[in-house]
Amino acid sequence: MPAFASRLANVETSAIRELFKLLGRPGIISFAGGFPDGAMFDVPGITEAAHHVLAEEPGALQYGATEGWQPLREQLAAFLKAKDVRDVAAGDLIVTTGSQQALDLIGKTLIDPGDKVLVEGPTFLATIQAFRLYGAEVISAPIDAEGVQVDRLERLIAEHRPKLVYLIPTFGNPSGALLSLERRRKVLELAVRYGTFVVEDDPYGDLYFDAPPPPSLLALSHEVPGSRELLAYAGSLSKVLAPGLRVGWLLAPQALLANAVMCKQFSDAHTSTYAQATAAQYLQSGRLPGTLARVRTVYRARAAAMGEALRSELGDAIDFTAPQGGLFIWARLTGAGGKVADAAEFARRAIAENVAFVPGAPFFATDADPATLRLSFATADEARIREGVARLARAL
Amino acid sequence: MPAFASRLANVETSAIRELFKLLGRPGIISFAGGFPDGAMFDVPGITEAAHHVLAEEPGALQYGATEGWQPLREQLAAFLKAKDVRDVAAGDLIVTTGSQQALDLIGKTLIDPGDKVLVEGPTFLATIQAFRLYGAEVISAPIDAEGVQVDRLERLIAEHRPKLVYLIPTFGNPSGALLSLERRRKVLELAVRYGTFVVEDDPYGDLYFDAPPPPSLLALSHEVPGSRELLAYAGSLSKVLAPGLRVGWLLAPQALLANAVMCKQFSDAHTSTYAQATAAQYLQSGRLPGTLARVRTVYRARAAAMGEALRSELGDAIDFTAPQGGLFIWARLTGAGGKVADAAEFARRAIAENVAFVPGAPFFATDADPATLRLSFATADEARIREGVARLARAL
Repeated sequence: MPAFASRLANVETSAIRELFKLLGRPGIISFAGGFPDGAMFDVPGITEAAHHVLAEEPGALQYGATEGWQPLREQLAAFLKAKDVRDVAAGDLIVTTGSQQALDLIGKTLIDPGDKVLVEGPTFLATIQAFRLYGAEVISAPIDAEGVQVDRLERLIAEHRPKLVYLIPTFGNPSGALLSLERRRKVLELAVRYGTFVVEDDPYGDLYFDAPPPPSLLALSHEVPGSRELLAYAGSLSKVLAPGLRVGWLLAPQALLANAVMCKQFSDAHTSTYAQATAAQYLQSGRLPGTLARVRTVYRARAAAMGEALRSELGDAIDFTAPQGGLFIWARLTGAGGKVADAAEFARRAIAENVAFVPGAPFFATDADPATLRLSFATADEARIREGVARLARAL
Repeated sequence: MPAFASRLANVETSAIRELFKLLGRPGIISFAGGFPDGAMFDVPGITEAAHHVLAEEPGALQYGATEGWQPLREQLAAFLKAKDVRDVAAGDLIVTTGSQQALDLIGKTLIDPGDKVLVEGPTFLATIQAFRLYGAEVISAPIDAEGVQVDRLERLIAEHRPKLVYLIPTFGNPSGALLSLERRRKVLELAVRYGTFVVEDDPYGDLYFDAPPPPSLLALSHEVPGSRELLAYAGSLSKVLAPGLRVGWLLAPQALLANAVMCKQFSDAHTSTYAQATAAQYLQSGRLPGTLARVRTVYRARAAAMGEALRSELGDAIDFTAPQGGLFIWARLTGAGGKVADAAEFARRAIAENVAFVPGAPFFATDADPATLRLSFATADEARIREGVARLARAL
């Protein structure tokens, strides 16, 4: 073998990936996943869409435009309009192979080795790695229950003059935090004041439990003149329809979009037209709002069950804010009563009790907090959640 | 907008892409495409496979392993075994989002800025661009009707000590050339002698007209000790099943495969499980050999029709070798009889006559030959081919 490229030295296969190999053990209750519950996928609706596509749209089996399947781009623009995004048309976005590819294309088009990127601490691990592969120095901005702390973010922007700021403002992975409306406005104002480019990643925004979240940065941008041109938005159908379609999208200023299309042409030519056409047909069928309503009800009940069980079983040994949407509870071990305060050690003990979660430290680009952990409530029913939390209590 | 990454300066949106914008003109006969004829896709077979998957394999809508859908990896290993590849198992390959992604992952894992890569002159344009995006200096090795000239290739290897050599030995795009068995052995021997890594791209090998082509480099590698560890192989279902599935694969030594998986995790997480499961089910159905037999018959007739028409209509103004498979006739304007010898000028005149092809110069990484052109016979029937060639004669 020849020598590998030096860019590989910036990343490593994640600790989380190793953990996942243990999850096949029989009887294990897993709160470790980052995925939606497959039992809630609208299989009949997707099947109907697939039938239609295969019978009526022969182009869905052929090569397609790098920018995406036009009917899907139109459906996605309508989807955003329905969430109060103004001035959005099919031509403002491209379809990507999952929103992961949108992040990869942002890295490929924007990041030179040595460029600095600010992210939430904690944030989505695969974003940190995707950007590091292009040579980024990724720096964490601290969060609290209302999302990223904008005063700290401003100081970091002023200090580091980053190439971009990456945020998951709504029910982020892993934090589950919801950035307040006030802070959203402030982020857009910071973008304009410092000329800082902001990437909003929004795969979870539709998974709210009660009231809808505040408008996305994208939807708010019309209130802050100049901010829309400094904003890219990555979206995904993985959490609202089905991850297996691998359909995401990138909305961005035209100059960035043009370069992203060029890079995508040489990355995978285009996203599966078969999957895109199926997704477009599904969205057109009008079934998504009903599906989302069912999903929200189920996740709300599971989040509540997990929150209640954690409080009653683990008491003051654990600290967390009940999430208002998404898939995750982000928690911190307090060490109260001499209990274990290191989440990696807790994870090992938990595996011995046949329950799994993900320690929080790998989600920090810098300044990792070893007491943190991520618990997903999405894929176990309420009885299993209670049983799993009881096992966690034994492990603690 | 912030400044774009400096890697973008190494590539540009292709001249070909611009040409393709003209192809929507009514009445135009296009020999410009690089795609198979959609009318020959086995839509009933794919539909049956999709039904099965949606009814029986709920995992096909969920996230999947970055390495690929296991039943598909097994089917692809069997597909290679049936083409005389020895010692191949599912674990030796990963599924990619089209073989384009296999090429991108090779670039991402292996190429540092300034690394040299040898390719055929001409070769697949999107490979040149994919590698350049990672900073490669791409250098052409000349070809003739029997594929790359191995003596010239050896001199270039000795001179440049490239990071890798990229070849499409069988019915390459755009050349349509078939690397002889003797030259195949020689390429593997060169790999071992110089410790040079070779990437074999093989999307067209199943599209032979009469006798099957010589074994792939991969299938031959067991005859040249040490060559298998210096070989990666990119395959695709796009030309044999349907491009819209976007299913390709990368077979490579384990160390490279592990790094490709890590990079793919952060590029698109995994290829659409929905598309992968559909492809796996199709391959398992046993319909592919019948489909390929039909496709070969049709393409053989079209290639013959185009070859005969070119010889009778354009005479000694054009020179080409009749292809033995694939989708393309690669030709060269001779300038005989004072006719136009510049393919770009000829392409402009052809468009005026409502017929299109692709000039050959962009397919050369270095040392472009402006007299060359690529004609696809894949998507027009024989009458349209004859009419199109008659228009070419008028344009000439």
